[in-house]
Amino acid sequence: MWQETVLVNENIKFKYIENGSVTSVNGFKAAGIHCGLKKKRKDLALITSDTECNAGGTFTLNKVKAAPLLISQELLKNHNKFKAVLVNSGNANACTGQDGYEDALATQKYCANKLGVEANQVLISSTGVIGQRMNLASIINGIENIADSVTDDGGIDAAEAIMTTDLRNKNFAVKVNLSKGQVTIGAICKGSGMIMPNMATMLAFVTTDADIDKHTVQNLISTSVLDSFNKISVDGDTSTNDMVILMANGKSAITLVEGTNDYDIFQEALTDLCKKMSKSIAGDGEGATKLITVNVTNATSDEDANKVGKAICNSPLVKTAINGSDANWGRIISAAGYSGAEFDPAKVTIKFNDFTILSPNYKSDFCETEAKEILSNDEIEINIDLNAGTSDTTWWTCDFSEQYIQINASYRS
Amino acid sequence: MWQETVLVNENIKFKYIENGSVTSVNGFKAAGIHCGLKKKRKDLALITSDTECNAGGTFTLNKVKAAPLLISQELLKNHNKFKAVLVNSGNANACTGQDGYEDALATQKYCANKLGVEANQVLISSTGVIGQRMNLASIINGIENIADSVTDDGGIDAAEAIMTTDLRNKNFAVKVNLSKGQVTIGAICKGSGMIMPNMATMLAFVTTDADIDKHTVQNLISTSVLDSFNKISVDGDTSTNDMVILMANGKSAITLVEGTNDYDIFQEALTDLCKKMSKSIAGDGEGATKLITVNVTNATSDEDANKVGKAICNSPLVKTAINGSDANWGRIISAAGYSGAEFDPAKVTIKFNDFTILSPNYKSDFCETEAKEILSNDEIEINIDLNAGTSDTTWWTCDFSEQYIQINASYRS
Repeated sequence: MWQETVLVNENIKFKYIENGSVTSVNGFKAAGIHCGLKKKRKDLALITSDTECNAGGTFTLNKVKAAPLLISQELLKNHNKFKAVLVNSGNANACTGQDGYEDALATQKYCANKLGVEANQVLISSTGVIGQRMNLASIINGIENIADSVTDDGGIDAAEAIMTTDLRNKNFAVKVNLSKGQVTIGAICKGSGMIMPNMATMLAFVTTDADIDKHTVQNLISTSVLDSFNKISVDGDTSTNDMVILMANGKSAITLVEGTNDYDIFQEALTDLCKKMSKSIAGDGEGATKLITVNVTNATSDEDANKVGKAICNSPLVKTAINGSDANWGRIISAAGYSGAEFDPAKVTIKFNDFTILSPNYKSDFCETEAKEILSNDEIEINIDLNAGTSDTTWWTCDFSEQYIQINASYRS
Repeated sequence: MWQETVLVNENIKFKYIENGSVTSVNGFKAAGIHCGLKKKRKDLALITSDTECNAGGTFTLNKVKAAPLLISQELLKNHNKFKAVLVNSGNANACTGQDGYEDALATQKYCANKLGVEANQVLISSTGVIGQRMNLASIINGIENIADSVTDDGGIDAAEAIMTTDLRNKNFAVKVNLSKGQVTIGAICKGSGMIMPNMATMLAFVTTDADIDKHTVQNLISTSVLDSFNKISVDGDTSTNDMVILMANGKSAITLVEGTNDYDIFQEALTDLCKKMSKSIAGDGEGATKLITVNVTNATSDEDANKVGKAICNSPLVKTAINGSDANWGRIISAAGYSGAEFDPAKVTIKFNDFTILSPNYKSDFCETEAKEILSNDEIEINIDLNAGTSDTTWWTCDFSEQYIQINASYRS
């Protein structure tokens, strides 16, 4: 793995930092602590910036929106100069009505006071159970402690504190080589159930020291989300709380301007980072034992390619077959068949990695043992060529295991 | 339970026959045998009619269509005077190309010869694994045996022979009181995974002795399917093989004419029968431990009501919560929220049976123990009032259990 101290080769556009996070970026501090919303595990995260940040974000399309999400969405629309993001796990503060809304405002205000900034400089976010009031005393007490705990290397603690049923904390950072020097992008995120395009119970907080104006920050994150977070699905459920936020503090003094080569490189790195996060979320889906990448090629349109990718990623029958390492391609072509996309089933090719399972005219003649071996890996590619046009896409999901049921039949308790 | 011999009370429009089936209808015979497509269990069913039948049907919307389905769909479009339906389980004969198509034609032809009728008087249907050629010798040998085995009470054997992962055979019959006398409608069906609106791996064969012209038979079955089979979902997967067929042999000499009171009564009975079948399929979904009825009321349109019903029935998170008897209403309102329907979440009421879980303005104050008790029943109603309009609908699904994964991770083997 590449170390933060290693200089970036001029020919390399971007490189990941080992165990990087939001605090790998100059000027950002973070912490993650236990405040009492969960029994034992960390449940409160704070990311702060030494200087004011421009920020942009994308939010759930669910009609039911959590209180903190409504507040942060509104803030990003009408304000700027952000200094912090406060995130709790253990309680979603969704479907809690006016009371819940006021709880969210209270935590935001308390955090701002404690940090000595304006309330509208603090973004807030929650994840956890829907429909229960938060224990305000725990959070207030937690803010009291966490505000003094943020450090230059607290990003991993923060990543841990935003987890719900995630098994692994998810944190990344990437150094980007631009013409005028190097900038860094850092991130933490969480997934696990209710993962479905157009946001899910999925939170991602991204930091950078690039100097980017507010309008451009929004464009950059919106573009990167399209080919990453919007193409993962764990269970087809879209949550009430999901958000992706990008904060730029400008500390590098390297300004990004749309239409320049530097801008394109930064966008590429940001999208790559978002894809890395998306894959980490899909691969750590509730009960997941395998990460499944679905490459759809030669669809008649982008829309059709996405319909097929989404249908395959959402099919419990495909996902259970992969769980059982069963090369049941009939379920894959059937999912494509009901996706609504236009194609001739007799022209389809399906491969697991490079291993052909189905050729045109329904020719299927493969070694079951070899197929089973491929499907026993932790990462599997389903490559489906529709042979109908020129549009391609990639989606990600995980297999469906008995553990998914166990986790979700008892989540609240 | 009501016995076949009991006269129907004049005030009662229709009544079910205990353990009725397709052969409860005068003039129909059936049988179900083991021919060797499955290891041990029955896998070949034949329903025959003494006289020629008018028939209508509905078929899967999956772009990938099984060979026998293509043949039967075409037959129903262009022919009439049907004498038999031959159905095998254990092999879907889907994605088998031209070879599979010829296999299907061969079985149809062999069956017709054996019965002494024209090939285009025999409808055919298959269910089972996709993408494998059928063992033609087994089926041909099976036809040789089954053609001589059909009896007046063989409907239940036939119901058994069309099962795949179904745990219970599904057979029903209903006596209908019309102004000129009584007619009977009988049926067998199977479900179990890949159950989703617009047909699924779901076969239903319905017989009646009413005298109905071809055009009217089609209208009757199409109408009844809309509020029954098109409103169940087990796993959101739509199969390649699904069909519902209604055959009318006219033996009662009671003619049904559209626009008459008798017609309406018959339609009502047929829809009720189709709902009974739908519920039996949902309640016997793969790994199901509970039948869930979702009543959506006061949506802004029928379309919106259906969006909400479908989203709730397809949500793995709702279905796992019910499996665990967990009154997690947050997942229900969240599913409604991402369904795409228009409504104000703050105005929603949710009940389990008559027990209120959520009132407007997110008021939720109920006894968890009592809720758990209700959710521990075999049959549960989720009643969601959107308070947004006047459209209502009812959908059916089952809970999602660890057994679903077990069954589907190893289905082919």
